[in-house]
Amino acid sequence: MSISEPVERLMKLFSRFPGVGDKTARRFALFLLQQPGEFSDELASTISLMRESTFSCSICGNLTTEDPCPVCSDPFRDRGVLCVLENVEDMLSLEQAGVFSGLYFILGGRVSPMDGEDLPPERLSRLGEYVREGGFREVIIATNPSVEGDLTFYAVLDSLKSMKPRITRLAFGLPLGGTIGYADRVTLHASIESRVDVSLANNSFERKE
Amino acid sequence: MSISEPVERLMKLFSRFPGVGDKTARRFALFLLQQPGEFSDELASTISLMRESTFSCSICGNLTTEDPCPVCSDPFRDRGVLCVLENVEDMLSLEQAGVFSGLYFILGGRVSPMDGEDLPPERLSRLGEYVREGGFREVIIATNPSVEGDLTFYAVLDSLKSMKPRITRLAFGLPLGGTIGYADRVTLHASIESRVDVSLANNSFERKE
Repeated sequence: MSISEPVERLMKLFSRFPGVGDKTARRFALFLLQQPGEFSDELASTISLMRESTFSCSICGNLTTEDPCPVCSDPFRDRGVLCVLENVEDMLSLEQAGVFSGLYFILGGRVSPMDGEDLPPERLSRLGEYVREGGFREVIIATNPSVEGDLTFYAVLDSLKSMKPRITRLAFGLPLGGTIGYADRVTLHASIESRVDVSLANNSFERKE
Repeated sequence: MSISEPVERLMKLFSRFPGVGDKTARRFALFLLQQPGEFSDELASTISLMRESTFSCSICGNLTTEDPCPVCSDPFRDRGVLCVLENVEDMLSLEQAGVFSGLYFILGGRVSPMDGEDLPPERLSRLGEYVREGGFREVIIATNPSVEGDLTFYAVLDSLKSMKPRITRLAFGLPLGGTIGYADRVTLHASIESRVDVSLANNSFERKE
């Protein structure tokens, strides 16, 4: 090949990143070469450090350097509400949005027959224990709005049936800032199905059954 | 923050990559954690290795671990044609396409008054020497089809004036596989300006003046 071997090897590694093709991988490698040496040094050492020091929280499954993780050990969080998520990425989205202050439980998988994926049985039974002993008043099953998310939702719901807490799921409908004109059929269907009663008579916002 | 500190630091570093936002940086970091440990190890060591072992070829400016680089020292390349490029990325595109078998010269910059960029003067004078002494029959100034590319082209052309080799530039026009309907105005203009005579009378494909 016409370029230095380590550059080419790095391109190969970068091209295995999600959503990164050959051209982007090349751009990444060349970008690194244009940066001051400290940047590459810090990147390499942070990757090694992360690998060595990070593991899953024994309670919720969050990525952490100490057990239990900062969320599970935070005394200011609402210990009455548990939010069940497919993965850490979804948890970070909720955390960064700052819209939830309860505790989390990460399933670490989803039900997807097409991809041959299923929920790890030990996580499901761990969730069962946690809900049985945790004294939660509510469990939010926050799976994604997709076929796989739906299947995952029902698998979790099934495993929690006959338990005490109230079980909820996220609202599906038009995304805020979106337009009806550009919404897809399934989203429009969800927004009609879950339409909210705003009649003055009952004077409160409630779901129409 | 709710996630382990090294993960967050790595996200910050990734988010400085070109075209990578916060969400993609997060996905990259979580992707690394899901891979077997060897992947992170190899990535970290390759980044360090590349940084330490890679430098610019003293002849053409290509990235290399040995001087001169594999292209400049390849006896099978056509030493009569020199292709002048803005950067290493463009060179890799040509190499991967396998459409050029001559030698390269990388300017390592471009003329862009808007961004306050100019060609490194030492590279321009180095190019002058190289062309004067290299015995090339043709120099292709392969700058990008943009305003900056045009300015760079004329700067290089000016520095090579009164030298012996034939000077050419890349053809601009409709990209193959593209459609006239979707082509932008400037591309359409270039494709009309550079239209090719296909009349049966002269029986050969030549540019119309």
